[in-house]
Amino acid sequence: MTTAGEPPTTASTLRAKHLGIDTHQEAVIFMRQDCHVCRSEGFAAHARVRVANGHQWIIATLFQVTSDLLGHSEAGLSDSAFRRLGVRNGDRISVSHPKPVESLSSVRGKVYGTRLEEGPIRQIIEDIVSGRYSDIHLSSFVTACSARSLDYDEMIALTRAMIDVGDQLEWGSAPILDKHCVGGLPGNRTTPIVVAIVAAAGLTIPKTSSRAITSPAGTADAMETLAPVDLDLSQMRKVVEAEGGCVVWGGAVRLSPADDILIRIERALDLDSEGQLVASVLSKKIAAGATHTILDLPVGPTAKVRSEEAAARLEEDLTAVAHAFGLEVTALQTDGTQPVGRGIGPALEARDVMAVLRNDPGAPQDLADRAVTLSGALLELGGSARNGEGPGLARKILQDGRAEAKLEKICEAQGGLRTPPVAKERYPILSGSTGIVGEIDNRRIARIAKLAGAPDAKAAGVERHKWIGEMVEKGEPLFTIHAETPGELAYALDYAAVNDSIFTVGKP
Amino acid sequence: MTTAGEPPTTASTLRAKHLGIDTHQEAVIFMRQDCHVCRSEGFAAHARVRVANGHQWIIATLFQVTSDLLGHSEAGLSDSAFRRLGVRNGDRISVSHPKPVESLSSVRGKVYGTRLEEGPIRQIIEDIVSGRYSDIHLSSFVTACSARSLDYDEMIALTRAMIDVGDQLEWGSAPILDKHCVGGLPGNRTTPIVVAIVAAAGLTIPKTSSRAITSPAGTADAMETLAPVDLDLSQMRKVVEAEGGCVVWGGAVRLSPADDILIRIERALDLDSEGQLVASVLSKKIAAGATHTILDLPVGPTAKVRSEEAAARLEEDLTAVAHAFGLEVTALQTDGTQPVGRGIGPALEARDVMAVLRNDPGAPQDLADRAVTLSGALLELGGSARNGEGPGLARKILQDGRAEAKLEKICEAQGGLRTPPVAKERYPILSGSTGIVGEIDNRRIARIAKLAGAPDAKAAGVERHKWIGEMVEKGEPLFTIHAETPGELAYALDYAAVNDSIFTVGKP
Repeated sequence: MTTAGEPPTTASTLRAKHLGIDTHQEAVIFMRQDCHVCRSEGFAAHARVRVANGHQWIIATLFQVTSDLLGHSEAGLSDSAFRRLGVRNGDRISVSHPKPVESLSSVRGKVYGTRLEEGPIRQIIEDIVSGRYSDIHLSSFVTACSARSLDYDEMIALTRAMIDVGDQLEWGSAPILDKHCVGGLPGNRTTPIVVAIVAAAGLTIPKTSSRAITSPAGTADAMETLAPVDLDLSQMRKVVEAEGGCVVWGGAVRLSPADDILIRIERALDLDSEGQLVASVLSKKIAAGATHTILDLPVGPTAKVRSEEAAARLEEDLTAVAHAFGLEVTALQTDGTQPVGRGIGPALEARDVMAVLRNDPGAPQDLADRAVTLSGALLELGGSARNGEGPGLARKILQDGRAEAKLEKICEAQGGLRTPPVAKERYPILSGSTGIVGEIDNRRIARIAKLAGAPDAKAAGVERHKWIGEMVEKGEPLFTIHAETPGELAYALDYAAVNDSIFTVGKP
Repeated sequence: MTTAGEPPTTASTLRAKHLGIDTHQEAVIFMRQDCHVCRSEGFAAHARVRVANGHQWIIATLFQVTSDLLGHSEAGLSDSAFRRLGVRNGDRISVSHPKPVESLSSVRGKVYGTRLEEGPIRQIIEDIVSGRYSDIHLSSFVTACSARSLDYDEMIALTRAMIDVGDQLEWGSAPILDKHCVGGLPGNRTTPIVVAIVAAAGLTIPKTSSRAITSPAGTADAMETLAPVDLDLSQMRKVVEAEGGCVVWGGAVRLSPADDILIRIERALDLDSEGQLVASVLSKKIAAGATHTILDLPVGPTAKVRSEEAAARLEEDLTAVAHAFGLEVTALQTDGTQPVGRGIGPALEARDVMAVLRNDPGAPQDLADRAVTLSGALLELGGSARNGEGPGLARKILQDGRAEAKLEKICEAQGGLRTPPVAKERYPILSGSTGIVGEIDNRRIARIAKLAGAPDAKAAGVERHKWIGEMVEKGEPLFTIHAETPGELAYALDYAAVNDSIFTVGKP
């Protein structure tokens, strides 16, 4: 007497066909509506199905095909499905019903107010990373954690689960330093400067950074205009061994893989529960092997952290949870009301970085000051400076050229120092009136940089000329759009033409 | 000085191309990755975009194409997108960013515990019906309403919004009767019998029903094997005018269109907040023009309502909210532990219905009894019987043939009485032991009926031979699988072979 279980795996396989369809993160399989496997399994369009090739399997969303896009024994896979399954055009795949996702009952429990225990949290995160959760399921989990805030035990368990489900790095003896900025601020490219200062002081700071997801540039994009960033783990270790620090793309190591999945959902909902934010930030730092980290919290009405009270609460939670993992944390509240530096976009930001490191007279002072503040905190955390003396030491290392020399050596070690490209097309946007700059819309200025081509077009973006509080004459440039092609310049200009209150200019 | 608004509508249109891809409910647009519109608008794969043709527009999910599936000025649309947009292959469409969905801030408020006021609820429901909410958004709304239960004012506002966003029917003088079963029970096809009894008593009962979504048969599917059900509103009115009642498919009228959208999400999450259930049930009845309705609440461990306490609570909420709309409600708790009748599947259930109406000796008594109970309550609600005398009168109308005669006249008025088809292939599943039937797994028996072909194959499904509590000998048939083709029979048999505890047979 067999126990009730999976339907029998009919040995019907199909040949995977490359259709050239990019569905981004979501794995999609296309099957003929009259396909015998659809019938035998009882699939309906938009069902979630298990697609396997030997031991590899993924969960994909099924779309059915009524035309001759597919032959009778063929199934189409989206680009992401091909990648995640590790198959090539023509390989045989089998399709079946997925096992029920048991951990969803824990999500339901959380919806109704039941605390999440460590075991269930672990199972949820594992199921998320293995792709078992559809957008509907992911959204319910994120919403539940926002409606029913996580207590410290839940935050710690979530952080631990997110660490354990990915890779973890180790770096030898402490202190191993790291930094993180909560929420994006256009142009706030402090990392290469901070890494340079801290490594020059003799401390270890192996920094992995991400590429832009929705912003005009990520740290990895900007750094890539100065040196290669696509290093694998052993190459990364060599750089850190030689120079004490690095700034590489984190894609070669899978740190906290649930994080990007959850971030996509949180962005779509504009929901950020404290607990999930804490787990997101700390899981990445701990998995990266950090023992001491600073957290830059820009505070402002259009920043992620809206007020000083919110920042203080976040600091408290981050510190408490970090301690459970033996991670030392210093959080710093910074100004989140306007972009930082002149440039927004990979090459433009890299040029700001080099200008600061070279102590150019025209270097953006706000970027330099922030980098010194953050580096100073790290020097104190790492024991290279006494309490209160960190910023002073950081300023010295910057001003006497040690930081510049260190970054150049890091770039050489990563594969060679490059010169950031310069955009061919430029167009200044002029102020319509005379007055004082009151506000700058971070979101729209980032949008212009993206329409101009950032981050894919590395030289593209925005170069701003005015800071909040500065005087501007009618007809004077507020910012200049940089683009690599006339077409991309046109896209950005079209947008700027109907969005002319990005800079608010008030009566003097 | 123009105010910040939508990016300019570049007059770039594309030609819609039919790819023959069925994505079910979700509208999908396929665009070339190098398409100039993607660049000018700054779209990324999996973004939500606004697709327009003149005044018609929809929100669709974007997938990008890297192969030559599409020509340079072409965009592919999923079947549902074509339908909802009302365009044909080759028509010109324009693609742009959708306006931000403002009502999502109300959803976020609900997540954090802010009550939903009438205005915001209305806006949410309108946005849902116009397709502005992605699965991520829909799931967050459903989850929020489960985590933060709705109070009566919210339930009333939600019900009202769901009514107002669709069509509403009016039927002349009260009472206008209706019925609804909360949660599916395989084979529980009481509606045609109830409508026949009630209309034969001279009351008005204009019943719209749905086709199966995930079950082996909906009322509309079963009724369709007896008469046409695809009537438009004016045809429906003629039938009701002539015969006092009808059983038609509700698809021709758009009653509470948000309901199906939300139900799909609730099913995927297995989440059913009280407030949403109340609004779902009542919005459909009120929009249909009912003044008096009975609610059948099957109670059991695998039914939607799990206990008598839960049923009592639901009754209370349904009655309170219904009164706000002047709708009279009687709720009846019934047995939800096993299927009803012999047949599961459109034709098999219709045959049970006719057997009951004809008073056949072999007619399933459980179906007849339930129909009499429900009809009796309606007769009392409608004023045709005094309190307590309803079931007696209903039984009389059934037994003296008036109900049978009425259903036949309704079928003729709907377009002609039909004979339900009979399946060519049949296979009995035998009991592996001797004993008493203890439990019947509703979900798995429904799955077998679907694998056998129901509801698309109208004659397919399951005919069960044993009820809970009955004696069965080893080797005696528990149920018979009906299928229209040998292949479909094989699918169902494969499943039955590894799921042999659908009927639990215990020691006698």
